[in-house]
Amino acid sequence: MSLIVQKFGGSSVANADGIKRVARRIVDTQKAGNDVVVVVSAMGDTTDDLLDVAEEVTGRAPGPSRELDMLLTAGERISMSVLAMAVNSLGAKAQSFTGSQAGMITDGVHGSARLVEVNPNRIQTSISQGNIAIVAGFQGMNRQTGDITTLGRGGSDTTAVALAAAMDADVCEIYTDVDGVYSADPRVVPSARKLDTVTSEEMLELAANGAKILHLRSVEYARRFNLKLHVRSSFSQNEGTIVIPDNPEEFEFENLKEIPLEQPLISGVTHDRSQAKVTVVGVPDVPGSAAKVFGLLNESNVNLDMIVQNVSTDRSDVTDISFTCDQAQGGKAVEVLTNHKAELGFEEIKYNDSIGKLSLVGAGMKANPGVSFAFFDALREAGVNIEMISTSEIRISVITDIDHLDEAVRAVHTAFGLDAEQEATVYGGTGR
Amino acid sequence: MSLIVQKFGGSSVANADGIKRVARRIVDTQKAGNDVVVVVSAMGDTTDDLLDVAEEVTGRAPGPSRELDMLLTAGERISMSVLAMAVNSLGAKAQSFTGSQAGMITDGVHGSARLVEVNPNRIQTSISQGNIAIVAGFQGMNRQTGDITTLGRGGSDTTAVALAAAMDADVCEIYTDVDGVYSADPRVVPSARKLDTVTSEEMLELAANGAKILHLRSVEYARRFNLKLHVRSSFSQNEGTIVIPDNPEEFEFENLKEIPLEQPLISGVTHDRSQAKVTVVGVPDVPGSAAKVFGLLNESNVNLDMIVQNVSTDRSDVTDISFTCDQAQGGKAVEVLTNHKAELGFEEIKYNDSIGKLSLVGAGMKANPGVSFAFFDALREAGVNIEMISTSEIRISVITDIDHLDEAVRAVHTAFGLDAEQEATVYGGTGR
Repeated sequence: MSLIVQKFGGSSVANADGIKRVARRIVDTQKAGNDVVVVVSAMGDTTDDLLDVAEEVTGRAPGPSRELDMLLTAGERISMSVLAMAVNSLGAKAQSFTGSQAGMITDGVHGSARLVEVNPNRIQTSISQGNIAIVAGFQGMNRQTGDITTLGRGGSDTTAVALAAAMDADVCEIYTDVDGVYSADPRVVPSARKLDTVTSEEMLELAANGAKILHLRSVEYARRFNLKLHVRSSFSQNEGTIVIPDNPEEFEFENLKEIPLEQPLISGVTHDRSQAKVTVVGVPDVPGSAAKVFGLLNESNVNLDMIVQNVSTDRSDVTDISFTCDQAQGGKAVEVLTNHKAELGFEEIKYNDSIGKLSLVGAGMKANPGVSFAFFDALREAGVNIEMISTSEIRISVITDIDHLDEAVRAVHTAFGLDAEQEATVYGGTGR
Repeated sequence: MSLIVQKFGGSSVANADGIKRVARRIVDTQKAGNDVVVVVSAMGDTTDDLLDVAEEVTGRAPGPSRELDMLLTAGERISMSVLAMAVNSLGAKAQSFTGSQAGMITDGVHGSARLVEVNPNRIQTSISQGNIAIVAGFQGMNRQTGDITTLGRGGSDTTAVALAAAMDADVCEIYTDVDGVYSADPRVVPSARKLDTVTSEEMLELAANGAKILHLRSVEYARRFNLKLHVRSSFSQNEGTIVIPDNPEEFEFENLKEIPLEQPLISGVTHDRSQAKVTVVGVPDVPGSAAKVFGLLNESNVNLDMIVQNVSTDRSDVTDISFTCDQAQGGKAVEVLTNHKAELGFEEIKYNDSIGKLSLVGAGMKANPGVSFAFFDALREAGVNIEMISTSEIRISVITDIDHLDEAVRAVHTAFGLDAEQEATVYGGTGR
């Protein structure tokens, strides 16, 4: 008997019909001879509705707090108990569990708590009694105080992966509103191909560089615990994308036609419109200048992504430092640096949030030095100007003008032979 | 420093304005130098909305279950956390606690669990740190399984009284949408008087016989633990009604002008339209007949209220047995008895749900045998026919035709000099 953990996001349980559809799928999975643990998010707009109530009462948008976490966790309490009732009404047995009942123990950072321990004893007992266990995603309990916490954005993915790891599940299925992980965003590249498999290393790069289908943290977690993920649609019965753990020989891949013996050259092209570029112009070219700049930004909790330092073309005593960060943090970055202008000795700051980031990801890249050439050649042919470049072992990223981003993504996608013959199916809704 | 427990029902926190009003009152109570523990119900229609979601998904109105309790407790989770945020936004400190966090330990009967233990350690710690503790009413945790339970109708009153008793509170204030306990229902008797005090013994009789302002269970609980209750309006600053414990000498009644040295003759008149009368006609008049009838009803969980047995006027070998029960259980009572007609040997069953019950309650009745006479004389003068009578030490109840009930209530209210000069103020909404 296999143990399967299934995670359904808010768009899958947005209304009564969605809950009934999910309930049928869960029951079918159990009837096929599996133990089933389900992780569920709050129904559709519940979270926004709860935030509205809080704002109406306090007169402002609520920030992270003990009480906001208590409020938001009401959302999963509703979806999980109603889902359990739906399963029961189909003649199967279900029990719902809060994060704390499921043993999701966290630190005390409200709004973005980190799991420190998972004790799924009650879940284990429940499924051993023939129940389908339905667990609230996104929430946990502070180990010290017993207070309710939430795991932040993408938290339900993390709950599912952590539970699957702690219970040694055979697979963790992440249900969403597309058929799996695509070689590019189908809204930008209609000919994007669904990937049958992707390595966890590639998935990490894809998630970190704009693919929104899985939250980065849950991919990191799955990778650390060598857990098999299956990303698929709750609106169809199609096979989705298997995220292959680093040691796949430990797993039986019965759902796959064959284990891919060699990685394809390229898995996909991602893009990200959420970044801004900051350039500090005319920094004195002496040792420690860059360290000062990045030290200040670090103290202010500005997270940097790409960093480039160039010698100025017309003067040899100064240099320009460019970096990218989230647009939400861009203003803070500029403010912090401007406040220390005298100390840092730079001439001016340039800020640009009309940029896009394009990344090419593929494990096969390691052994193929020709990839870089083909990549830049495709961008050159498409007439796309490159503002910054960064690379990892299995990724090349560039910053371009925002207006040329989609065109650049399509050009690269085509150049690497990723285009499918048919257009991708998108079932609607936004993934949660 | 006093410890005050304040309970606010669903109508007091029905919307953002209500929550803000309640938050201000709570903060004012703390600023006046008190420790404050608040018990709160779900906001207005939340419970009905949650039931609707469950019914939409399962296709039928949900009965009591583990999952329904999990669902319904989301209601207090929302109201309590939003109320805590409202208090915080006024500059005071508040923390909200679920029933299980507040140590409300129950048996395992979902939908109508009974408290078996109250461990308010976390509440004690929270208020000792200067917080206002806001506790979810109506809910608890199964001692054996750790499952979430609910206490059933009026459960939030019980939560408040049990917490107040366990924490040795100076007073438990029950906020509602009228100014206190009245000498009769102001909707039936506009000249009803608000009572400044009522003994817990009288309150028990009032609650058990139709006064809906406090749930019977919470009054029993307060009486057992000798706790002072203050029933008052959340819509005004008026003093309400103090329910005096059986040993009032242990309490300081600073809110009262004086401790009443002698009980007034009569506290009030209640009425109840929810009962039905069943008459078993022509039961053989042999020992054990009545025992058989009531034994069967007891096995079927039909709760009887009044019982009368008469010898038939025209035959000496048979008798008639009449009883009243909740209309909701009337059909079951008739069915059970009819199924055993041969065994019981009766002739026919009469069923009547067009009846009303009127009760006169007053601790002073004990020492005044003239009360009965004045009571029946008032009903006679008003031309009200009496179908059944039952009495306790401090109460007389009669069953009348439903159409004469209101008139009978007014006649008795006037006869005992209970009419006030001014009409009562009712603030709207239905109490929860």
